[in-house]
Amino acid sequence: MGKLTRRAMLGTSGGIIAGGLLKTRADAISFVDKDNEVEAQDPTKVLGRLTSEVGQRAPEEQPQRLVRNPNVSHSSSSRTPLHDLKGIITPADLHFERHHAGIPAIDPQQYELLIHGMVDRPMKFTLNDLKRFPSVSRLYFVECSGNGGSAYNKEARQEIDPQQMDGLTSTSEWTGVPLATLLQEVGVQEGASWLLAEGGDAALMARSVPIEKAWDDAMIGYGQNGEAIRPEQGYPARLLLPGWEGNASVKWIRRIEVKDQPTMTRDETSKYTDPLKDGTARQFSFTIDAKSAITFPAYPYTLTEPGWWEIQGLAWSGRGRITKVDISTDRGETWHESKLHGPVLSKCHTRFTYPWNWDGQETILMSRATDETGYVQPALSTLMEARGEGTSYHYNSIRPWKVEENGRVYFGQGDIS
Amino acid sequence: MGKLTRRAMLGTSGGIIAGGLLKTRADAISFVDKDNEVEAQDPTKVLGRLTSEVGQRAPEEQPQRLVRNPNVSHSSSSRTPLHDLKGIITPADLHFERHHAGIPAIDPQQYELLIHGMVDRPMKFTLNDLKRFPSVSRLYFVECSGNGGSAYNKEARQEIDPQQMDGLTSTSEWTGVPLATLLQEVGVQEGASWLLAEGGDAALMARSVPIEKAWDDAMIGYGQNGEAIRPEQGYPARLLLPGWEGNASVKWIRRIEVKDQPTMTRDETSKYTDPLKDGTARQFSFTIDAKSAITFPAYPYTLTEPGWWEIQGLAWSGRGRITKVDISTDRGETWHESKLHGPVLSKCHTRFTYPWNWDGQETILMSRATDETGYVQPALSTLMEARGEGTSYHYNSIRPWKVEENGRVYFGQGDIS
Repeated sequence: MGKLTRRAMLGTSGGIIAGGLLKTRADAISFVDKDNEVEAQDPTKVLGRLTSEVGQRAPEEQPQRLVRNPNVSHSSSSRTPLHDLKGIITPADLHFERHHAGIPAIDPQQYELLIHGMVDRPMKFTLNDLKRFPSVSRLYFVECSGNGGSAYNKEARQEIDPQQMDGLTSTSEWTGVPLATLLQEVGVQEGASWLLAEGGDAALMARSVPIEKAWDDAMIGYGQNGEAIRPEQGYPARLLLPGWEGNASVKWIRRIEVKDQPTMTRDETSKYTDPLKDGTARQFSFTIDAKSAITFPAYPYTLTEPGWWEIQGLAWSGRGRITKVDISTDRGETWHESKLHGPVLSKCHTRFTYPWNWDGQETILMSRATDETGYVQPALSTLMEARGEGTSYHYNSIRPWKVEENGRVYFGQGDIS
Repeated sequence: MGKLTRRAMLGTSGGIIAGGLLKTRADAISFVDKDNEVEAQDPTKVLGRLTSEVGQRAPEEQPQRLVRNPNVSHSSSSRTPLHDLKGIITPADLHFERHHAGIPAIDPQQYELLIHGMVDRPMKFTLNDLKRFPSVSRLYFVECSGNGGSAYNKEARQEIDPQQMDGLTSTSEWTGVPLATLLQEVGVQEGASWLLAEGGDAALMARSVPIEKAWDDAMIGYGQNGEAIRPEQGYPARLLLPGWEGNASVKWIRRIEVKDQPTMTRDETSKYTDPLKDGTARQFSFTIDAKSAITFPAYPYTLTEPGWWEIQGLAWSGRGRITKVDISTDRGETWHESKLHGPVLSKCHTRFTYPWNWDGQETILMSRATDETGYVQPALSTLMEARGEGTSYHYNSIRPWKVEENGRVYFGQGDIS
């Protein structure tokens, strides 16, 4: 955009000030709001709050996760407020949760990870043991395979926001020890091909993982965004399988058994398989396909006026880097490449933005991600053609948002399918 | 390292388990600690805590900032616990603080940024105005120019930890609007060369900034690690001058005046100049020179045994990317390149690690950063030769750590100077 269009983008909300009206806040004086008995003071005229050991958010800024069935079920989830967030980092206390039996309280002094099975030297590792190995730190997203299920519906409701729809994905900087290091430590035997990963919660959540993932980039994580992993993210240590569906990154990891076949646990037979329209099901569909989601404008936001608005959103792929995110502001008739904000990292949220000059007419906005393998995020109809209408998990279709003439924004799936 | 050395690195702290002794935690049973009247339970046998809107740290993990003169002075600071942190992200509630008159409480609805002076169209921008402009998100460190002052001393005390010494630096993902965008909006007049940036706190903290920095990478930031900037970091908006000394990145920014000369504010004459040995002083020494700091092992840690330990630390430069961090484990006689953990970003903390096989003898550990301009972090004696012994600010000399035969680690400045 040139200088004039950037100026235009501000619209009427930032006014030009006539010279004679210039008044800085230093000219303001303290006043008492007698109705509320609150003294509101000019912050330049009063000493501020003191420093503290641990900071707090501003009272006006209290982003929250959206909890499913609060205070009811131990098999529950909470969703990251994607619409509130900027950049790519998810603050650790807003990372989405998904638990099958609640969040266990694990004593880090008692914690041990057992690695056994087809190995030369079965071993237990304490948390301090894990921390003494060479460490790695990498930024990765984690996404629940069930994320976006409410959008997999031609008649999807209009009153749904990005948090409700896609809030089961978050990005952190994860620190830990490569699983390959630990497997070399115990000595994997000839013929080993699968791992069984078992969590230390009351569900004993367990998944089978191809051993190739360990030789690639799997890690046992103990750090998240600089600090210790939070309890709801697997404290004191979790399996982390970058780019794979979240449930396979078993939290509170307590046992890895090296095997020559998958275990067919309850968690990978009764759940986490994808029913197909021919009556069969995909199993071990670990990889998160490329996906993007517009987080602004989206329901329940109302655009206050025609003019320049910045479309913002996130894109990610379990197969590697996002290479582009195309935007359509005309119901999919034309597409334009958005700006990707660096660093653009493999298996990590990528922030995209696109400046849009809204003419005040009703339209539909869409984003479409492409990753470094050339995979392109599909339309809902394409995904349904491949998987059927009754599938479960891995809902990565394009999310359309309808903007009405009055500026109100709704989920627009029903308007294009 | 090959397989055997990695195995060796675990030392005796991870034991090989005889087959007959294998016992998983599922075999454990609940027990009651009668002395403490606390029931300790096997976490696999009891339902865990429910999900929540905002997460909490594990009770066992409570990193804290170190506050100078707590509850005493409004001109104070708090320091990031570098020794507790992993990776490069600093959690927002642990980002260091430095305030001259406390933390102001600014109503985001009342907030305005005035840009005036040598401009065609003086304007005030509300927070919503700022958020409507095209945004950028970037990871940058912010470091106080006074960071490390206690290490600028040939007789520096031995009992000092990385947080006490270098805790006035932190890294966040910052989101905001480029200052260049706002300057184009108001129209900068011919001959303008400096900005005056004024904060909205009771100190009216103010600094002069060359206008070139605005055309380069300065931003008005409103987001930090995905969320709104915290009050102690400048809520609702701050100036951010990537790679420059922290105080110039004026927090709670309320006014920018475009001028043809620096203003010579109290904050850049009575403070934030660097006295030199000839009696003159450096002024406007904005750029943070390349620096590195070992965060482990460091005081007050004790190495429990000879063998493999991972030396860890952070390096950063205000001039661009870190290109290498060399490590010496023999008092500076030989140097070896450490591993830099990606992403290695310009003007951002970079994590380095180096595997070290300690032979149990007394020695001194050092790290030495080089940045993409070729600048090499100097020894204390080199820095003192250039700047004199009584200088203030910008203390980026090499930090030596002495490891005694008993494994105890102390700051070793006095041992090499």
